[in-house]
Amino acid sequence: ARQGFPEVVLGLGKTRRQIVEIVERLVRRAPNVLVTRTDADTFGEVRNICTEAEWHEAARMIRIWRDRTDRGRGTIAVVTAGTSDIPVAEEAALTAEAMGNRVERIWDVGVAGIHRVLAERERLRGARAIIVAAGMEGALPSVVGGLVRVPVIAVPTSVGYGASFNGLAALLGMLNSCASNVTVVNIDNGFGAGFVASLINRRHDEE
Amino acid sequence: ARQGFPEVVLGLGKTRRQIVEIVERLVRRAPNVLVTRTDADTFGEVRNICTEAEWHEAARMIRIWRDRTDRGRGTIAVVTAGTSDIPVAEEAALTAEAMGNRVERIWDVGVAGIHRVLAERERLRGARAIIVAAGMEGALPSVVGGLVRVPVIAVPTSVGYGASFNGLAALLGMLNSCASNVTVVNIDNGFGAGFVASLINRRHDEE
Amino acid sequence: ARQGFPEVVLGLGKTRRQIVEIVERLVRRAPNVLVTRTDADTFGEVRNICTEAEWHEAARMIRIWRDRTDRGRGTIAVVTAGTSDIPVAEEAALTAEAMGNRVERIWDVGVAGIHRVLAERERLRGARAIIVAAGMEGALPSVVGGLVRVPVIAVPTSVGYGASFNGLAALLGMLNSCASNVTVVNIDNGFGAGFVASLINRRHDEE
Amino acid sequence: ARQGFPEVVLGLGKTRRQIVEIVERLVRRAPNVLVTRTDADTFGEVRNICTEAEWHEAARMIRIWRDRTDRGRGTIAVVTAGTSDIPVAEEAALTAEAMGNRVERIWDVGVAGIHRVLAERERLRGARAIIVAAGMEGALPSVVGGLVRVPVIAVPTSVGYGASFNGLAALLGMLNSCASNVTVVNIDNGFGAGFVASLINRRHDEE
Amino acid sequence: ARQGFPEVVLGLGKTRRQIVEIVERLVRRAPNVLVTRTDADTFGEVRNICTEAEWHEAARMIRIWRDRTDRGRGTIAVVTAGTSDIPVAEEAALTAEAMGNRVERIWDVGVAGIHRVLAERERLRGARAIIVAAGMEGALPSVVGGLVRVPVIAVPTSVGYGASFNGLAALLGMLNSCASNVTVVNIDNGFGAGFVASLINRRHDEE
Amino acid sequence: ARQGFPEVVLGLGKTRRQIVEIVERLVRRAPNVLVTRTDADTFGEVRNICTEAEWHEAARMIRIWRDRTDRGRGTIAVVTAGTSDIPVAEEAALTAEAMGNRVERIWDVGVAGIHRVLAERERLRGARAIIVAAGMEGALPSVVGGLVRVPVIAVPTSVGYGASFNGLAALLGMLNSCASNVTVVNIDNGFGAGFVASLINRRHDEE
Amino acid sequence: ARQGFPEVVLGLGKTRRQIVEIVERLVRRAPNVLVTRTDADTFGEVRNICTEAEWHEAARMIRIWRDRTDRGRGTIAVVTAGTSDIPVAEEAALTAEAMGNRVERIWDVGVAGIHRVLAERERLRGARAIIVAAGMEGALPSVVGGLVRVPVIAVPTSVGYGASFNGLAALLGMLNSCASNVTVVNIDNGFGAGFVASLINRRHDEE
Amino acid sequence: ARQGFPEVVLGLGKTRRQIVEIVERLVRRAPNVLVTRTDADTFGEVRNICTEAEWHEAARMIRIWRDRTDRGRGTIAVVTAGTSDIPVAEEAALTAEAMGNRVERIWDVGVAGIHRVLAERERLRGARAIIVAAGMEGALPSVVGGLVRVPVIAVPTSVGYGASFNGLAALLGMLNSCASNVTVVNIDNGFGAGFVASLINRRHDEE
Ligand SMILES: Nc1ncnc2c1ncn2[C@@H]1O[C@H](COP(=O)(O)O)[C@@H](O)[C@H]1O
Ligand SMILES: Nc1ncnc2c1ncn2[C@@H]1O[C@H](COP(=O)(O)O)[C@@H](O)[C@H]1O
Ligand SMILES: Nc1ncnc2c1ncn2[C@@H]1O[C@H](COP(=O)(O)O)[C@@H](O)[C@H]1O
Ligand SMILES: Nc1ncnc2c1ncn2[C@@H]1O[C@H](COP(=O)(O)O)[C@@H](O)[C@H]1O
Ligand SMILES: [Mg+2]
Ligand SMILES: [Mg+2]
Ligand SMILES: [Mg+2]
Ligand SMILES: [Mg+2]
Ligand SMILES: [Mg+2]
Ligand SMILES: [Mg+2]
Ligand SMILES: [Mg+2]
Ligand SMILES: [Mg+2]
Repeated sequence: ARQGFPEVVLGLGKTRRQIVEIVERLVRRAPNVLVTRTDADTFGEVRNICTEAEWHEAARMIRIWRDRTDRGRGTIAVVTAGTSDIPVAEEAALTAEAMGNRVERIWDVGVAGIHRVLAERERLRGARAIIVAAGMEGALPSVVGGLVRVPVIAVPTSVGYGASFNGLAALLGMLNSCASNVTVVNIDNGFGAGFVASLINRRHDEE
Repeated sequence: ARQGFPEVVLGLGKTRRQIVEIVERLVRRAPNVLVTRTDADTFGEVRNICTEAEWHEAARMIRIWRDRTDRGRGTIAVVTAGTSDIPVAEEAALTAEAMGNRVERIWDVGVAGIHRVLAERERLRGARAIIVAAGMEGALPSVVGGLVRVPVIAVPTSVGYGASFNGLAALLGMLNSCASNVTVVNIDNGFGAGFVASLINRRHDEE
Repeated sequence: ARQGFPEVVLGLGKTRRQIVEIVERLVRRAPNVLVTRTDADTFGEVRNICTEAEWHEAARMIRIWRDRTDRGRGTIAVVTAGTSDIPVAEEAALTAEAMGNRVERIWDVGVAGIHRVLAERERLRGARAIIVAAGMEGALPSVVGGLVRVPVIAVPTSVGYGASFNGLAALLGMLNSCASNVTVVNIDNGFGAGFVASLINRRHDEE
Repeated sequence: ARQGFPEVVLGLGKTRRQIVEIVERLVRRAPNVLVTRTDADTFGEVRNICTEAEWHEAARMIRIWRDRTDRGRGTIAVVTAGTSDIPVAEEAALTAEAMGNRVERIWDVGVAGIHRVLAERERLRGARAIIVAAGMEGALPSVVGGLVRVPVIAVPTSVGYGASFNGLAALLGMLNSCASNVTVVNIDNGFGAGFVASLINRRHDEE
Repeated sequence: ARQGFPEVVLGLGKTRRQIVEIVERLVRRAPNVLVTRTDADTFGEVRNICTEAEWHEAARMIRIWRDRTDRGRGTIAVVTAGTSDIPVAEEAALTAEAMGNRVERIWDVGVAGIHRVLAERERLRGARAIIVAAGMEGALPSVVGGLVRVPVIAVPTSVGYGASFNGLAALLGMLNSCASNVTVVNIDNGFGAGFVASLINRRHDEE
Repeated sequence: ARQGFPEVVLGLGKTRRQIVEIVERLVRRAPNVLVTRTDADTFGEVRNICTEAEWHEAARMIRIWRDRTDRGRGTIAVVTAGTSDIPVAEEAALTAEAMGNRVERIWDVGVAGIHRVLAERERLRGARAIIVAAGMEGALPSVVGGLVRVPVIAVPTSVGYGASFNGLAALLGMLNSCASNVTVVNIDNGFGAGFVASLINRRHDEE
Repeated sequence: ARQGFPEVVLGLGKTRRQIVEIVERLVRRAPNVLVTRTDADTFGEVRNICTEAEWHEAARMIRIWRDRTDRGRGTIAVVTAGTSDIPVAEEAALTAEAMGNRVERIWDVGVAGIHRVLAERERLRGARAIIVAAGMEGALPSVVGGLVRVPVIAVPTSVGYGASFNGLAALLGMLNSCASNVTVVNIDNGFGAGFVASLINRRHDEE
Repeated sequence: ARQGFPEVVLGLGKTRRQIVEIVERLVRRAPNVLVTRTDADTFGEVRNICTEAEWHEAARMIRIWRDRTDRGRGTIAVVTAGTSDIPVAEEAALTAEAMGNRVERIWDVGVAGIHRVLAERERLRGARAIIVAAGMEGALPSVVGGLVRVPVIAVPTSVGYGASFNGLAALLGMLNSCASNVTVVNIDNGFGAGFVASLINRRHDEE
């Protein structure tokens, strides 16, 4: 593992045994290890190998976070439109922390109550990269993007029903954002958003 | 034609001759007649029949507006996200006027510059029904919906490129709006939005 | 909570504990509270907090309805095409009642037996706003829309199989309605339909 | 050509020369020949070969109709929702006539004015097979299907805009029809509808 | 119930109690009753009401078939491409029988072994209407259509995986059939296919 | 250019000048050069550079075919369902010839007249690789696949209208083929099909 | 069963009893039999009939492999992008072995670590046909295709989440491959890929 | 215009007159102005207003670039898969330059010839942000992403045909990239990619 980059295991589609074996190998050479899209039982076995492992229920992530060096130029803000977007946002936040960033969590500031996001303007303007997780119509990244001059990484979530089509509506909305500073990652890909935000925020001497 | 309802001809898919013949019949019995999705040459012929006909280039609409009775309880606000949404919004506004409403036109207040829509809060709160036309990510109806307590009729427009898929992204965004007072009409259907807003704003004695 | 507006909690994607905590807070300041897309067990806990809570099995809604002031100009008709559309229609009807409206329920008048909807013409014409829930081909709003001069709010339902694509066929049908007074909400969004119909029917002095 | 079956040439994707050569060969052995999806110039050349050829502008069809034997058990009704659906309906009607059927044309009885289709109930009930061409929401076949006890062949048309998606909305609506006697052909496939209706109406001794 | 038409209950989306109550009412006035998309437990309760009820496991249909009058001009052939299409085909066959038709079942003659369908040419040519159920690429109706001169009703089935998209591939294939005598019903709609085939085969004096 | 492989230029999206410059460079080092998706005017300029260039109107291909060594183990059959599929099939055939194969062209044997393809059984069984181009429902590859024991490369064409969705229906049909020896290339990609068939047919000593 | 072709049963959509009966019949006349998409319990019953049956858990395949004659010209390489693609790749590899081929398994060489696939260049260049299974963006076949001069059969897998849409993203990517030697089979269709690769690799005297 | 941010006009959907008027206003207050998606005639009029305006034919962009201060921490690499992706890539490069960045253009290194992109490894590793424009299968960003440790902004282009669906295949591929440092913008949105890359590369003192 290169300095300041965690090892990451995508739990999805791997058996418990496979995950545990991979982690066992990785913890020897890397200070920080993440397992995404996994479950509490797998965590139970991982803790036997590495007692420093943490379990994050909402994000369904195992995190081994031993090297806590600060490597960021500024903070990373992680923002959600609603409560149900928090699991995805947490995946992003936990990833960014493990990569050496200070993270500001700003929950539940969806666009139908515009004063909520406006009230956070200061914290938003203090960040060097912003992650916005939103489902349903996915409008929040455009509003946030218009308030700041730093890159906004939009994460569509599969939150919603009917014509949300499991995140497709939010994804399309974000791709068509009229704010020029918005880029997009896959539906529910909090990890990817946290990773890219960390690269953006990385200090010169860390690159 | 019932009191206060214009006769309406959908020009799309009709020949010039067909349109002129229909209008000729309608102008005899109805004070107000609209022809939507038509062209300037058809207007040329319609004016020969009825000198009061107006041509609205942006909306591509012919309007014969003879009965100008005010039938509304309040005003109708017609709002656009961008300049390119104006043709659709004009179709809505011209329809609403022809049905006896006072119309407030509020152009170019898209969500990436949130101060613009906030600056119009007063005019928006003065309306009894609001029409919002937006393309691309279609986020504006949610923001407007959160600012008022009246019905918001969202009109997705086909403005955009790439993953806007000719208005599909805006349509899906609006259907998933997290504001509870938003309903949606077909892509580019300014006429329908103007019609329903007029029904909502209609005075009791006009019903 | 503004006069005559219930507080509403979308149960979907929230834990039981989260819902109960939110309701506990809301019942103190608002007379009327709705929880949508929830379950009987959550209701069990909510009733411990507020004994006036009602459980509506078909709609899967918890309703606390203490302020029963009539705020409507007329009635709201809620119509279904088939029996399986009733859960969505009930969500709409229960919402409209909680917002101070008298509601006419007209079940099972789908278009393949056109005499059924024609037989209800009088009740339909008595309403000031009409909600139509239909799945499969979603044709009923066009027929109802043609019979009346008030706004029709169409709710596509996910009822059907095969090429209904979980409500997509009905949704597209309704968006393309040839009746000019039809607007559309998200698939299965009975709540949204009930909410907008209430705004339309609201008496002047209530606005 | 088997007794009572026309030879048919699909003009789409063929050069003028190819069409003329094929027709030249067919007119020798078959009394009736149809060329669909063609143009007036091709007709000009075909008439040089066969002076009995007719040009049908709306349907864009060339028809050579020499054997006019009546082969039907009853009539075939061809119905449209709107004026713009007539070209497709004409293709169906001209085909059915060329296959030995008496055809009733019933234009412009779309569902938003339900009295129009009800006024045609007698003619509809007199038919042994019914073709219904409709675009936009494609609701008319369900209504017609509910009024009769014979097969209804639904033809979605590409008439419409926005979320009609060139006939997709109408197609899905028709496939999900709640009337049990409805089957569907491809978008704008008037020919196929006329062909199948003719097979259904065919007299015993003609089979 | 009109002479020779069964009463039909669509089980999907109805509770057991609702189905039993409806059947109880219908068996009094109609000799033949069908319940589609239901289960063995519901059948258990229906048999208590009506001892003549039959349970058809593959089709998941309850059938009460008391009036067995033959009303057909000829036979109806019901054909499948593969073994997995049989449940849908059985729904069609059982319906057609209950409507007074003799049915020929021709299973498992998919196009990749073309000799199998050719071997059935005689039985196919003896039928007056043919139903073809096929999943995956849905090619069989075109081949069958080319072998006969009677209407072919194609039923796409949801059999398949991957790019079959639950029957969509088969549905599109059938709608684009190059055989002119093919019409299509909804994915897995065996009932509808059996119903329309029965109308086509119906003797003159039965109409 | 490796022995027996032509240089290939995809004309699509290149200017005339760009194409001519590339060809000028390629003709020096490669005996055989293909330019696909181009036009007659570009050919005019290419012929100035290389007098051996041929223009193939149907396929819209420029071919410089100087090395005509036979490199195949057997023949390659190229088959079409209809006349309109010939341009795509020709692109495949011309490519296969330029790569050293003998090609059998079998046109117009679509599945609705099954005897036509059966009549070609011998030629089909003589081939070592078969290319099948078909639009609309795309059923022909399954039938051909069932008749032979060699690889069948299916090319969906954009021929059709309505629910063919520019080749999507054919593409899905082919991907779901119930014949195990079918693989698929992009819609209208005759070149790719000819290329792969050539690799399959290539003699040992040519590999 | 023709020389060197296994009998194959697609387990999907068949009951355990149906599968066992079919296998019972096939083992009498064919040395090699495959059952795909089945489960361990079915294997339990099949082993009672035929003790040589093997169970392959990852691929969920039963294989009876008695004739192990080598029939190939060279080897077949089976490649995966990630660990989760192995089940599909194993289905391909087991099929190819049962058809008389030597198989090289090359796991986990996805494109984001390009050195991994480059490190396998020699083994890849030694193969006469290559199968590549990849999910998510499905980019690996293009890279592999560019490294070799033999046919590459791309198998999209349903591995992924969000905008992978169950393999659709990978499928589209592969169909649009800019490498000319790539053809595609259905999502997760390892069997088909193994079958076609075997036909390509088949020795002359085996054809 | 804030320090170092150009004023930008999206030409799409605006009339020539509208564009010229906007530019006239902007050139007074901003040193750098971009007009995207416009044409040469509009440029002709803009040059009358501002003689420093440049016309970029490939990108169809007007650029007024007066403030050429270098504001970047490092270089921005702009990469294309093929020649036809250059127009989109140029839009990105021109934007990045106008925002104060040094740009490395790396054209035509698509994945089917992997050595081409590997040969550019050094230039890629020297960049602080990388933009990759690719059509068809859109695989290049994953490969580039795997070679570097900086953010990669993927721009799907509408280059391709058939199942590329105007850039959809590339878009989906990029969203599903297995490289963690990839984010995505709208199809053909070179401007957005250039803008975000500039924000990432911006020197501390410029923020
Ligand atoms: N939740 C996630 N979503 C997308 N990519 C992920 C996720 N978690 C891990 N990854 C990526 O997947 C790689 C590990 O995949 P694997 O080798 O299959 O465990 C990591 O290096 C990341 O690039
Ligand atoms: N632009 C439009 N979009 C949707 N519906 C329209 C439009 N213009 C007119 N209509 C509706 O179409 C009806 C007239 O259709 P027609 O009889 O075909 O002219 C009017 O009564 C309106 O209900
Ligand atoms: N499996 C089925 N698929 C489609 N329509 C059906 C099916 N079974 C019954 N129907 C139709 O649904 C009607 C009964 O619907 P319901 O009143 O909801 O029971 C019947 O008269 C049929 O027209
Ligand atoms: N019609 C076609 N469809 C798909 N790929 C093609 C076509 N013609 C050429 N190609 C491929 O595109 C490559 C040339 O692309 P280019 O360098 O852009 O001219 C050739 O080597 C072929 O692999
Ligand atoms: Mg949201
Ligand atoms: Mg917008
Ligand atoms: Mg319905
Ligand atoms: Mg219609
Ligand atoms: Mg099939
Ligand atoms: Mg075909
Ligand atoms: Mg992959
Ligand atoms: Mg590419």
